[in-house]
Order: sequence, then structure tokens, then C-alpha cells
Amino acid sequence: MPAKHAAPASAVLETSPAQGASTLPSAKLEAFLADCQLPTPFVVVDTEVVAQRYDALQDALPMADLFYAVKANPARPILDTLIGRGSFFDVASLGEIEHCLAAGVTSDRLSFGNTIKKRAHVERAYNLGVRLFAFDAEPELDKLSQTAPDATVFCRVLCDGKGAEWPLSRKFGCDPDEAERLLHLAADRGLRVGVSFHVGSQQGNVDAWDAAIETAARLARSLMGRTEPVRLDVVNVGGGFPGIYQREMPSIDLYGEAIAASLARHFTPLYGDYLPRIIAEPGRYLVADAGVLRTEVILVSRKHELDEKRWVYIDCGKFGGLAETMEEAIRYKIRTPHDEAVENGAPVGAVIIAGPSCDSADVLYEKTDYRMPIALAEGDQVDFLSTGAYTTTYSSVGFNGFAPLADYYI
Amino acid sequence: MPAKHAAPASAVLETSPAQGASTLPSAKLEAFLADCQLPTPFVVVDTEVVAQRYDALQDALPMADLFYAVKANPARPILDTLIGRGSFFDVASLGEIEHCLAAGVTSDRLSFGNTIKKRAHVERAYNLGVRLFAFDAEPELDKLSQTAPDATVFCRVLCDGKGAEWPLSRKFGCDPDEAERLLHLAADRGLRVGVSFHVGSQQGNVDAWDAAIETAARLARSLMGRTEPVRLDVVNVGGGFPGIYQREMPSIDLYGEAIAASLARHFTPLYGDYLPRIIAEPGRYLVADAGVLRTEVILVSRKHELDEKRWVYIDCGKFGGLAETMEEAIRYKIRTPHDEAVENGAPVGAVIIAGPSCDSADVLYEKTDYRMPIALAEGDQVDFLSTGAYTTTYSSVGFNGFAPLADYYI
Repeated sequence: MPAKHAAPASAVLETSPAQGASTLPSAKLEAFLADCQLPTPFVVVDTEVVAQRYDALQDALPMADLFYAVKANPARPILDTLIGRGSFFDVASLGEIEHCLAAGVTSDRLSFGNTIKKRAHVERAYNLGVRLFAFDAEPELDKLSQTAPDATVFCRVLCDGKGAEWPLSRKFGCDPDEAERLLHLAADRGLRVGVSFHVGSQQGNVDAWDAAIETAARLARSLMGRTEPVRLDVVNVGGGFPGIYQREMPSIDLYGEAIAASLARHFTPLYGDYLPRIIAEPGRYLVADAGVLRTEVILVSRKHELDEKRWVYIDCGKFGGLAETMEEAIRYKIRTPHDEAVENGAPVGAVIIAGPSCDSADVLYEKTDYRMPIALAEGDQVDFLSTGAYTTTYSSVGFNGFAPLADYYI
Repeated sequence: MPAKHAAPASAVLETSPAQGASTLPSAKLEAFLADCQLPTPFVVVDTEVVAQRYDALQDALPMADLFYAVKANPARPILDTLIGRGSFFDVASLGEIEHCLAAGVTSDRLSFGNTIKKRAHVERAYNLGVRLFAFDAEPELDKLSQTAPDATVFCRVLCDGKGAEWPLSRKFGCDPDEAERLLHLAADRGLRVGVSFHVGSQQGNVDAWDAAIETAARLARSLMGRTEPVRLDVVNVGGGFPGIYQREMPSIDLYGEAIAASLARHFTPLYGDYLPRIIAEPGRYLVADAGVLRTEVILVSRKHELDEKRWVYIDCGKFGGLAETMEEAIRYKIRTPHDEAVENGAPVGAVIIAGPSCDSADVLYEKTDYRMPIALAEGDQVDFLSTGAYTTTYSSVGFNGFAPLADYYI
């Protein structure tokens, strides 16, 4: 089980967006970036911040096993840090399974959380020792019952995603009625069963989990009503715990309290004191804030001499790591060399921020009201905060002849 | 100069969308895919089709030097094919310049068409022999006049993009008034000057070039009005020539006729018979149709037993090469193993098509009314046509643990 710490570095978590963009989560990152001569763009991640986030989340959710969503950032130093903390791992593919095993994760700590798996990959995962699988449809359940007969299979149920900065599509999960049918079918086939859901990425409403947990309890009750009652083996409350971007978010403790209260409210009447195994799948929360992405300004221009709004072109764009700016869903805090001057009264002005590629879709922020120092110019280094998650692996292999995003771990 | 062919394989170009999805542009591709045991996903490109497209476009635009937009697909076999045809090359970055030079392109055949360039990269490009550069703002012009004093610099002017399937954002180009100011400034500094524009990717209106060419002529007239008249060195009519997707497009000859008529209408009164050098930057048109992307169906499911619409999950998604499905802008033709049965009456039904990653944004088509055979099932191989452009290099380095898209050239 994960180590518990009496005094997690919760000060780090309390970094408020209101404090301005210039606060980094650790002195180590400040020092690294202060005299950094590395070519841009790159992202640097402080693994100690990852460890702090892990401990803080485990403290907030003491009832849960934390399965790190490897897709957020699969870098070895991050896996090593989390292995040292006692983490479990949520994997999206056979590639991620092999990557985790190579890092020393044991297969009993893996959950194959993708509802879309090739049959051969389920088989291989099972042979490698994985015993925890997601599904949301009958053909997928068929694969699992045929290939992984003694596994625990958890059915993903659709959520509405209200309150999330990145509400999920209907891609994953099925309607609750369908989930009920599938869970009974899985039980008929002798599989151990669970329920999972995801309330949406960067979820700002700590009560968002309640409706889904209520649904999970309703499904649990249905399984208890069988001639030979079946208990849920697992309730997987997913992810959605926020990183620090432009919008202020509740502290992680409030998430923990809300989820604990909801589990008690809906499951205690059914199971008494013996809850199913509770699983969470944090990705962004554990690694986002630990990273800083440094870029360089290539050009500041106007489309017309008299335009008020400037275009700021930087050397990292949508295809080089900043893919989560898609539809401007994730709005990063941005730091410039002129921020101190701005605090002392130097002027700022509205900007559109765009990447370096010859792709007209490679515009990062156009609708969001970003303002940057009027003094900003070619060659200035601009830092995007909370970029430890969903940057490096989103990067393209070489779109427009640009190399993939470089990454460093300190 | 490019070789001209009396009888280009124009039959290839006339492949009409109305003929259904199952027509590939060459027998070589059919044969390759017929007994292909390669693991999916992959894209295969027939370079002979690329050569045919090059010849057809050169025939349609005999007055133009064709600068292949390398970003569309920088693979060596494609460069080799086009070098053999006498092509010029439009490059987006120093990386692409070095890649082209390594392939044997001479630097006088390169155009650094990105309006966003690091000063050090302009310098390096200039030292490598590049003498043709784009710009759209005064600070970029400063870089060029300081670093590339005897170059030809062409100013990109904004277009409205009407009629394009992928209208461009305002990222590239400046307002015509600003272009006029900048061109005079460039002339003051002794640079040779040109004008460029882009009417939008996958442009369906052959008359879309006219307004931009008229603007270019107006700018040319302004430069002729100087005490010492300055002639435009280059008019760059950009790209926008279409690939074959779902929507039927005019034949390439009609584009050529419209552009030639427009150049004559606007430039002959000004320059007589001596037009500036005309440049075009085809990317998609040359390589898209030459490629087929083969995927495998992983899962076909419904969110509820009674849903009419099925979800079809395949092993290639937005982050694995099909990035141009973004906002469903590019709607590929899709081929399944059941198409013959469908032609003989087997039923089809509405689908949503999604990729394999654990990313909820990785949905390819949800609003577009795609219909696929009811018989479609796990393991079926599904081909996306016209995927030779903007697939391989968009692919992520390893999002969700999936390898970048494999590519083959035949």
C-alpha cells in the first residue's frame, strides 16, 4: 500500500491561480529554469512535485488505490517516482503494459483501463499477469470472458461530465441500463465484476462524483438481487482531479471528502462497512503541475498596423506538445520575462498565441482573453505552467520538420 | 523545368466520388493491399500516382513552377519521385530544408514558405543557399533584410478562404494595406519582392484565386508607381488544389484555366506579356490520393441495446495519423470488406467512428453521416482512401503507448 505522510507538502497544492502566473511549484524548477541554456522548446518536470501530489491525493482518498493514468506522461522517472510511492497503474495499451513491466511494475498493479482492446492484446496482457480490465460493450465482454476467464472486469458507465473543463465525449461507457445487462452477463459467466466511470477531465465540481456513485450502487443492488448474490469487486471512480490552470479549483481535500461521503451514503446501506475495492485513476493531478514547458517567441506581429491585438508566435504549438489547447479547453498560465515589470506598471495588451508550424489550425488561444506584456519580443522565453501532463506524448513525430518535444526530469 | 507529358494518366484524376469508395487510384495499390499481411495501422503510397498528379498539375498550370509543400508528406520516396519530375520544394522549417538537401534538392529550388522563422534559422537557410522567403510582418521583414540581403521576399496576404473545406485561420498573412506598406519597405531596402496567398485547403471553387490575384495586381501597380518602378519578382498562388474525399470537386484543368484567365485579366494590363514568376505550392493534391491507410476494427458496439447508431472503434485515430478529421473537416472515403455485399443489397447503418486511444477527443466522425455495413465486425480491415497527405507526420510519438503510423512506398 502507498506510504502515508503525516505532513504532505500541501503548500504546493494551495498555490492559488490568484497569485499570478509567476509562481512555480518548486525552488528546484525555478533554479533549473533560471540558468537554463537548453534549446527550446522543452518541458522539465520535477518528480518531487509528483511525489507530493501523490501523497496529497492518497491522504485525501485514503480508501482508494491510486492507479496512475500512464498516458498522462509515461516517462520512466515519473514511473520510478510513483513505484517508490506504492502506486498502481492504469494502462491504455499493450505498449503501456510492456513499458510499465519493464520499469519494474508487477502485473497485479496494472489495470487495462481502455474499453477498446484488440483480442490479441487482451490475451497477451492476461498472459503477462494482468487481471483487471475495463469494458463497455458485449463484444468486448466476449473477448474478456473468452480470454481472461478469472479476471475482474469493470463496466464503464456514461457520465454527463457537467462541471468539467474538458467534458468527455460519449466515446467511453454505456448507458446504465446496458451496464446492468452486461454486468449480469459477466456474472453469469463467472467473472468478477466492477463498475467504473469518469466525471470529466479537470472537474471543478467536487459533487460531480455523487450521481455516478449512486448509479454504481444501483447496479450493485441489482447484482445483490440475484438468486446467488454477486458483490461488486471494484468501484473505479476514475480521474478528473484538476491541475492548476487559469481557473481556480477546489483543494484536493474537498474532493476526497465529497467522494467519501458519497460512497458512505450510497454503499453503506448496501454493503455495511465492507466497501468494494475503491480505485481512482489520477493522471493530470499527479503530473501536470510538476512540469514547465519553455518556449521562445519567434515573432510578434499585427495583421494591420492599427490592430490592437497582436499575434504572438512561439516555437511550440498544437503539434509539438500543446495539443490540449484544442478548442482552448486547457488554458495554461503563462510566464514571461517581463512579468515583474508588469507588476510595476508596465503595460500589457491582448494577444492571439500561435505555434510555429505552417498549419493554420496551429493557433493556441484566439478566443480566450490572454494579455501579454507590450514589451514582449522575438527571442523572449515564455513558460507554460502545469505542462507535465498530456504534452510529451501528444507531440507529433516530426510535423513540419520540427523535432518532438524534448523533456527533462529533475 | 518539369518534364511535360502529352498524355498524363488523367483517368486517375477523373475517379469520381460518385463511383463509390472502393476504387483505388492504381492497380499496384489494389495488389499490395489484396494480399497484405502487414500489421495495422499503416499507410501505403504509390509514388507513380504522385508522379501522375505532378504531371497533371503541371499541364494544368504550365505557367507555374510547382513547389511541393513538403509538410504534406516528407518521405524520401516522394521527394525522389518529385525530384525526378523537376519539382521545386516549399519548406516549413530548417529541418525540412536539411531533409530536402540531403535528398539531393539544390537550394535554388527551395522556398522557405513559413512566415514564422527563427532568426538563426533564416541565417542558416541563407548560408545553405536558400534565396526565397515568405513574410507577413515588419519584424520578420527585418530579420530577412538583415540576414538575407539579396533574397526575394514574398509577402503573404490574407484571403477569406470562402469555398474551402478547410478555410484557413488568420494565422498567416496580413491585410492588403499592410502588405502594401511592407512591400514598399522591402523595396526600399533593396530586396526583390513578391506576393503570396493561400485560398484555403481543399478549395472547391476554381474562381477563389481571382480576388487574391486581383489584390496581388493592385500591390504590383502600387510598386510600379514608385519613382523608380519596382516589378514583382514572384506571384505565389499557394495551394488548395483538392484531393478526392467525400465531396465531388472540379477537375484540375478547370483550376488551371481559371488561374490563367485571372492572371491574364489582372496582370497583362500592367506587365504586358511578361508575367512575374508564377509559383504554386501543391501538397495535398500531389500526394493525398496516392495513399491508402489501412486500419482494423477493434470493436463495434452500442451505448444502449436499442440504439440505432453503432460505434465503430478502429486501430488508428486522431493521434495516430488521422488528425485531419479534426472538426470533421476532411471526410475520407472508407472501404470495407463488405462493400461488394452492400452493392448486392446487404444492409448498412449509421455509425460513429472513433480511434483506439483512451482520449475522449479521439472521435473521428460523429456529426458526418457515415454509414457502414451492418455485418462489420471486430477484425475487419477498413481502408481510408486519399491518405497520402497529412497523416504520417501528424502522428504522435507514442500517445497512449501506440507506435507512430507505419508507412510504405511502392
